[in-house]
Amino acid sequence: MEAAVHEYVAAFSAGSADRVAALFGENATVEDPVGSPLHEGLAAIRAFYEGSMATGAKLTLEGPVRVVADYAVFAFSVHLQWEGGAKRIDVIDSFRFDEGGNVAEMRAFWGPENMHGFT
Amino acid sequence: MEAAVHEYVAAFSAGSADRVAALFGENATVEDPVGSPLHEGLAAIRAFYEGSMATGAKLTLEGPVRVVADYAVFAFSVHLQWEGGAKRIDVIDSFRFDEGGNVAEMRAFWGPENMHGFT
Repeated sequence: MEAAVHEYVAAFSAGSADRVAALFGENATVEDPVGSPLHEGLAAIRAFYEGSMATGAKLTLEGPVRVVADYAVFAFSVHLQWEGGAKRIDVIDSFRFDEGGNVAEMRAFWGPENMHGFT
Repeated sequence: MEAAVHEYVAAFSAGSADRVAALFGENATVEDPVGSPLHEGLAAIRAFYEGSMATGAKLTLEGPVRVVADYAVFAFSVHLQWEGGAKRIDVIDSFRFDEGGNVAEMRAFWGPENMHGFT
Protein backbone atom coordinates (compact mmCIF):
# COMPACT_ATOMS: atom_id res chain seq x y z
CA MET A 1 0.00 0.00 0.00
CA GLU A 2 2.88 2.37 0.74
CA ALA A 3 4.44 1.49 -2.64
CA ALA A 4 1.13 2.33 -4.33
CA VAL A 5 1.22 5.78 -2.75
CA HIS A 6 4.75 6.43 -4.02
CA GLU A 7 3.76 5.22 -7.52
CA TYR A 8 0.70 7.52 -7.38
CA VAL A 9 2.83 10.56 -6.55
CA ALA A 10 5.41 9.71 -9.24
CA ALA A 11 2.81 8.87 -11.90
CA PHE A 12 0.81 12.03 -11.22
CA SER A 13 3.91 14.21 -11.36
CA ALA A 14 4.92 12.47 -14.62
CA GLY A 15 1.49 13.32 -16.07
CA SER A 16 0.54 9.71 -16.76
CA ALA A 17 -3.20 9.18 -16.30
CA ASP A 18 -2.71 5.57 -17.42
CA ARG A 19 -0.24 4.83 -14.62
CA VAL A 20 -2.48 6.52 -12.05
CA ALA A 21 -5.61 4.71 -13.25
CA ALA A 22 -3.74 1.38 -13.10
CA LEU A 23 -3.65 1.72 -9.29
CA PHE A 24 -7.47 1.71 -9.00
CA GLY A 25 -9.96 -1.15 -9.00
CA GLU A 26 -12.62 -1.38 -11.69
CA ASN A 27 -15.44 0.00 -9.57
CA ALA A 28 -13.35 2.43 -7.54
CA THR A 29 -14.57 5.86 -6.47
CA VAL A 30 -12.66 9.14 -6.28
CA GLU A 31 -13.98 12.07 -4.18
CA ASP A 32 -11.70 15.09 -4.73
CA PRO A 33 -12.26 17.25 -2.80
CA VAL A 34 -14.45 15.56 -0.17
CA GLY A 35 -18.01 16.82 -0.57
CA SER A 36 -17.85 16.99 -4.38
CA PRO A 37 -19.54 14.46 -6.73
CA LEU A 38 -17.85 11.05 -6.96
CA HIS A 39 -15.93 9.90 -10.02
CA GLU A 40 -17.00 6.28 -10.32
CA GLY A 41 -15.29 3.56 -12.34
CA LEU A 42 -11.99 3.47 -14.18
CA ALA A 43 -13.03 5.48 -17.24
CA ALA A 44 -14.34 8.38 -15.15
CA ILE A 45 -11.31 8.23 -12.87
CA ARG A 46 -8.86 8.26 -15.78
CA ALA A 47 -10.67 11.25 -17.32
CA PHE A 48 -10.62 13.11 -13.99
CA TYR A 49 -6.88 12.65 -13.61
CA GLU A 50 -6.20 13.61 -17.20
CA GLY A 51 -7.97 16.89 -16.49
CA SER A 52 -6.14 17.43 -13.21
CA MET A 53 -2.77 16.79 -14.81
CA ALA A 54 -3.45 19.27 -17.63
CA THR A 55 -2.43 21.98 -15.15
CA GLY A 56 1.09 20.50 -15.01
CA ALA A 57 0.73 20.05 -11.26
CA LYS A 58 3.46 18.21 -9.34
CA LEU A 59 2.98 16.45 -5.99
CA THR A 60 5.38 16.44 -3.04
CA LEU A 61 4.84 13.99 -0.15
CA GLU A 62 4.89 15.71 3.25
CA GLY A 63 5.94 13.17 5.86
CA PRO A 64 5.51 9.42 6.14
CA VAL A 65 2.58 7.47 4.70
CA ARG A 66 0.27 6.23 7.48
CA VAL A 67 -0.69 2.59 6.82
CA VAL A 68 -3.31 0.69 8.86
CA ALA A 69 -5.93 -1.97 8.15
CA ASP A 70 -6.92 -1.46 4.49
CA TYR A 71 -5.94 2.22 4.44
CA ALA A 72 -2.97 4.32 3.35
CA VAL A 73 -3.29 8.01 4.27
CA PHE A 74 -0.75 10.66 3.34
CA ALA A 75 -0.15 14.40 3.46
CA PHE A 76 1.24 16.14 0.41
CA SER A 77 1.38 19.45 -1.40
CA VAL A 78 0.36 20.21 -4.98
CA HIS A 79 2.49 22.72 -6.87
CA LEU A 80 1.42 24.34 -10.09
CA GLN A 81 1.92 27.41 -12.23
CA TRP A 82 -1.32 29.18 -13.04
CA GLU A 83 -2.03 32.62 -14.41
CA GLY A 84 1.64 33.47 -14.16
CA GLY A 85 2.20 32.60 -10.51
CA ALA A 86 3.26 29.67 -8.35
CA LYS A 87 0.34 28.08 -6.50
CA ARG A 88 0.30 25.50 -3.71
CA ILE A 89 -2.51 23.37 -2.31
CA ASP A 90 -2.06 21.33 0.89
CA VAL A 91 -3.92 18.03 0.73
CA ILE A 92 -4.36 14.80 2.69
CA ASP A 93 -5.53 11.80 0.65
CA SER A 94 -6.95 8.57 2.02
CA PHE A 95 -6.75 5.40 -0.08
CA ARG A 96 -8.85 2.37 0.94
CA PHE A 97 -7.65 -0.79 -0.79
CA ASP A 98 -9.60 -3.83 -1.97
CA GLU A 99 -8.47 -7.42 -1.42
CA GLY A 100 -6.63 -7.37 -4.75
CA GLY A 101 -4.40 -4.51 -3.63
CA ASN A 102 -6.09 -1.89 -5.82
CA VAL A 103 -7.47 1.39 -4.55
CA ALA A 104 -11.23 1.02 -4.03
CA GLU A 105 -11.91 4.46 -2.56
CA MET A 106 -9.91 7.66 -2.72
CA ARG A 107 -10.90 10.77 -0.74
CA ALA A 108 -8.98 14.05 -0.96
CA PHE A 109 -9.21 16.46 1.98
CA TRP A 110 -8.48 20.07 1.02
CA GLY A 111 -10.49 23.26 1.06
CA PRO A 112 -10.22 26.98 0.37
CA GLU A 113 -8.00 27.55 3.43
CA ASN A 114 -5.50 25.07 1.98
CA MET A 115 -5.06 26.98 -1.31
CA HIS A 116 -2.13 29.41 -1.44
CA GLY A 117 -1.28 31.96 -4.12
CA PHE A 118 -4.76 31.95 -5.70
CA THR A 119 -5.38 35.67 -5.13
CA MET B 1 -12.92 23.27 12.99
CA GLU B 2 -9.28 24.26 12.74
CA ALA B 3 -9.49 25.84 16.21
CA ALA B 4 -10.91 22.57 17.55
CA VAL B 5 -7.86 20.73 16.21
CA HIS B 6 -5.48 23.15 17.91
CA GLU B 7 -7.41 22.83 21.18
CA TYR B 8 -7.29 19.02 20.83
CA VAL B 9 -3.50 19.03 20.42
CA ALA B 10 -3.03 21.46 23.32
CA ALA B 11 -5.49 19.68 25.62
CA PHE B 12 -4.00 16.27 24.91
CA SER B 13 -0.47 17.51 25.52
CA ALA B 14 -1.67 19.14 28.76
CA GLY B 15 -3.10 15.80 29.87
CA SER B 16 -6.66 17.08 30.25
CA ALA B 17 -9.17 14.38 29.33
CA ASP B 18 -11.95 16.80 30.28
CA ARG B 19 -10.83 19.42 27.74
CA VAL B 20 -10.44 16.76 25.03
CA ALA B 21 -13.85 15.19 25.76
CA ALA B 22 -15.46 18.65 25.63
CA LEU B 23 -14.71 18.75 21.89
CA PHE B 24 -16.87 15.70 21.18
CA GLY B 25 -20.60 15.32 20.71
CA GLU B 26 -22.64 13.16 23.08
CA ASN B 27 -22.89 10.17 20.72
CA ALA B 28 -19.48 10.58 19.09
CA THR B 29 -17.28 7.66 18.09
CA VAL B 30 -13.49 7.31 18.33
CA GLU B 31 -11.63 4.65 16.27
CA ASP B 32 -7.95 4.71 17.26
CA PRO B 33 -6.29 3.11 15.40
CA VAL B 34 -8.62 2.49 12.45
CA GLY B 35 -9.70 -1.16 12.50
CA SER B 36 -9.90 -1.35 16.30
CA PRO B 37 -13.18 -1.38 18.29
CA LEU B 38 -15.01 1.94 18.51
CA HIS B 39 -15.18 4.00 21.69
CA GLU B 40 -18.78 5.22 21.67
CA GLY B 41 -20.23 8.06 23.70
CA LEU B 42 -18.64 10.69 25.90
CA ALA B 43 -17.93 8.49 28.92
CA ALA B 44 -16.09 5.87 26.86
CA ILE B 45 -14.22 8.56 24.95
CA ARG B 46 -13.13 10.35 28.10
CA ALA B 47 -11.89 7.06 29.60
CA PHE B 48 -10.00 6.22 26.43
CA TYR B 49 -8.17 9.55 26.44
CA GLU B 50 -7.42 9.32 30.13
CA GLY B 51 -5.67 6.01 29.43
CA SER B 52 -3.80 7.38 26.41
CA MET B 53 -2.58 10.38 28.37
CA ALA B 54 -1.29 8.23 31.21
CA THR B 55 1.79 7.63 29.05
CA GLY B 56 2.62 11.35 29.21
CA ALA B 57 2.48 11.54 25.42
CA LYS B 58 2.74 14.92 23.72
CA LEU B 59 1.41 15.76 20.23
CA THR B 60 3.12 17.89 17.58
CA LEU B 61 1.16 19.04 14.53
CA GLU B 62 2.96 18.29 11.26
CA GLY B 63 1.81 20.77 8.65
CA PRO B 64 -1.45 22.63 8.08
CA VAL B 65 -4.88 21.29 9.07
CA ARG B 66 -6.89 20.31 5.99
CA VAL B 67 -10.47 21.60 6.32
CA VAL B 68 -13.26 20.68 3.88
CA ALA B 69 -17.01 20.06 4.12
CA ASP B 70 -17.58 18.75 7.69
CA TYR B 71 -14.03 17.41 8.07
CA ALA B 72 -10.77 18.54 9.60
CA VAL B 73 -7.85 16.19 8.86
CA PHE B 74 -4.35 16.65 10.22
CA ALA B 75 -0.96 14.98 10.40
CA PHE B 76 0.91 14.92 13.68
CA SER B 77 3.46 12.99 15.68
CA VAL B 78 3.09 11.52 19.17
CA HIS B 79 6.12 11.68 21.43
CA LEU B 80 6.48 9.68 24.62
CA GLN B 81 9.02 8.19 26.99
CA TRP B 82 8.49 4.49 27.53
CA GLU B 83 10.75 1.83 28.99
CA GLY B 84 13.55 4.35 29.18
CA GLY B 85 13.57 5.49 25.57
CA ALA B 86 12.05 8.18 23.38
CA LYS B 87 9.28 6.83 21.12
CA ARG B 88 7.49 8.48 18.19
CA ILE B 89 4.31 7.50 16.37
CA ASP B 90 3.29 9.24 13.14
CA VAL B 91 -0.48 9.63 12.89
CA ILE B 92 -3.13 11.28 10.70
CA ASP B 93 -6.47 11.95 12.40
CA SER B 94 -9.76 12.77 10.72
CA PHE B 95 -12.46 14.64 12.63
CA ARG B 96 -15.98 14.76 11.21
CA PHE B 97 -18.08 17.47 12.86
CA ASP B 98 -21.78 17.59 13.62
CA GLU B 99 -23.98 20.63 13.00
CA GLY B 100 -23.29 21.90 16.51
CA GLY B 101 -19.55 22.11 15.83
CA ASN B 102 -18.66 19.09 17.96
CA VAL B 103 -16.61 16.12 16.74
CA ALA B 104 -19.02 13.32 15.76
CA GLU B 105 -16.45 10.85 14.44
CA MET B 106 -12.72 10.61 15.01
CA ARG B 107 -10.55 8.11 13.13
CA ALA B 108 -6.80 7.75 13.76
CA PHE B 109 -4.65 6.33 10.96
CA TRP B 110 -1.40 4.75 12.19
CA GLY B 111 0.05 1.28 12.11
CA PRO B 112 3.16 -0.70 13.04
CA GLU B 113 5.24 0.96 10.30
CA ASN B 114 4.47 4.34 11.88
CA MET B 115 5.91 3.39 15.29
CA HIS B 116 9.53 4.34 15.90
CA GLY B 117 11.78 3.40 18.78
CA PHE B 118 9.61 0.49 20.01
CA THR B 119 12.34 -2.13 19.56
